[in-house]
Amino acid sequence: MNEIVETMLNHRSVRSFKPDPLPADHIEQLVLAGQAASTSSYLQAYTIIGVTDQALKQSLAQLAGNQAYVAENGHFFLFCADFHRHEIAADIHQTDIQDAVTSAEKLIVGISDASLASQNVALAAESMGYGICYIGGIRNNAEEVAELLNLPDHVLPLFGMCVGTPAVIPDKKPRLPIDAVYAENGYFSPETQTESLQQYDDITSSYYSERTGGVRADTWSLQVSGMLSTLKRGHMLPFMQKKGWNRH
Amino acid sequence: MNEIVETMLNHRSVRSFKPDPLPADHIEQLVLAGQAASTSSYLQAYTIIGVTDQALKQSLAQLAGNQAYVAENGHFFLFCADFHRHEIAADIHQTDIQDAVTSAEKLIVGISDASLASQNVALAAESMGYGICYIGGIRNNAEEVAELLNLPDHVLPLFGMCVGTPAVIPDKKPRLPIDAVYAENGYFSPETQTESLQQYDDITSSYYSERTGGVRADTWSLQVSGMLSTLKRGHMLPFMQKKGWNRH
Repeated sequence: MNEIVETMLNHRSVRSFKPDPLPADHIEQLVLAGQAASTSSYLQAYTIIGVTDQALKQSLAQLAGNQAYVAENGHFFLFCADFHRHEIAADIHQTDIQDAVTSAEKLIVGISDASLASQNVALAAESMGYGICYIGGIRNNAEEVAELLNLPDHVLPLFGMCVGTPAVIPDKKPRLPIDAVYAENGYFSPETQTESLQQYDDITSSYYSERTGGVRADTWSLQVSGMLSTLKRGHMLPFMQKKGWNRH
Repeated sequence: MNEIVETMLNHRSVRSFKPDPLPADHIEQLVLAGQAASTSSYLQAYTIIGVTDQALKQSLAQLAGNQAYVAENGHFFLFCADFHRHEIAADIHQTDIQDAVTSAEKLIVGISDASLASQNVALAAESMGYGICYIGGIRNNAEEVAELLNLPDHVLPLFGMCVGTPAVIPDKKPRLPIDAVYAENGYFSPETQTESLQQYDDITSSYYSERTGGVRADTWSLQVSGMLSTLKRGHMLPFMQKKGWNRH
């Protein structure tokens, strides 16, 4: 196993950082690493906003559900799907691209382009000795985040990422068994899938039990059932549509 | 700059592969690398289907718009957003999760989870000496792809990825200037954005001109304006909704 795969396998989400800000050349390397990821049809349909202003970071931390580490880290990135840039390009050539950019298909493109770039940023940061944590919580108040950072239409805030020198390095959480995630030449059989989920429940149950001296008897299936039993962020569809996304 | 960032910056999409299939231990390493990526709220809302059957690969190549390299490579991965697994978990605990998993918010989660995993797979493959190419073209006929690979409801095919030993190594295409992708503490000013797009048009124009002996006088803004002037894959919204995604 090479160093790159080892760095990937060593990932864990860090939620406590030393306050030292990232130097400018590191930020530049991270963004260039993100940009080097694949992009759908060369569209590069994303924008990365770095947040260095402490008052802005405090506001984002609140909007993301009072997560202190959103304000306290070495650098905060916000990843957005972006077709506003293409609107400007189309204006130069007097072309109408509204029908395309407001489609659900282009939402897929924007989210995947932004996500591929973000994962390169995450791994590049980890390769430089930093820890990272994705912040989906910014979607709790997506509209306020968009206003705070002056995002025009066709720019959709997706998630943030805290980067910095870890103050605390947490354990790695066990992933689904490979047989529950990877199948060949077709989808899993119902039997295989149920079996591998049961296996995973045993693994996660032991994991939580060991870390809480037997107090927490959670399993993955129980955890996700609870988490998905209520609708969260039901505002995302109207918000997206208002901002020119996912209309048809 | 370390080896990991260098590997990222050296990315280019490979579209011509030697026929040697990937050994099983490499496939396993790639999937484990993908699984190690961050995942929203521990949901791991994706599935990876490896396609080794040559007849299936031929069918996928056709469905993806007759791209020969979809059939001719060392291994083909299909990345899907997946909440079917969570349906099974919820059944165990007699919990109704329909409202959550059919929301636009959970579409964002599924696409980003699958994308983060895929970018680790891509970079891990490149670190092992392989070339890769993402295949968004599978969405040209998303419904037929889902039928071919027996994908149940709540499993959404997003993109494929060809992996293999490169037969031809293409040039790297110049990305947007960093100032056009990365802003601090707020979105770009209109002036900065227009200026950096003009700069990029000059760069891409030179790139195409040099590679075609002056024949191709394309710019990025012209290219994307043309590409986005018509709606493509307008079937994606009804297809997603039929499969239990993005309904509200």
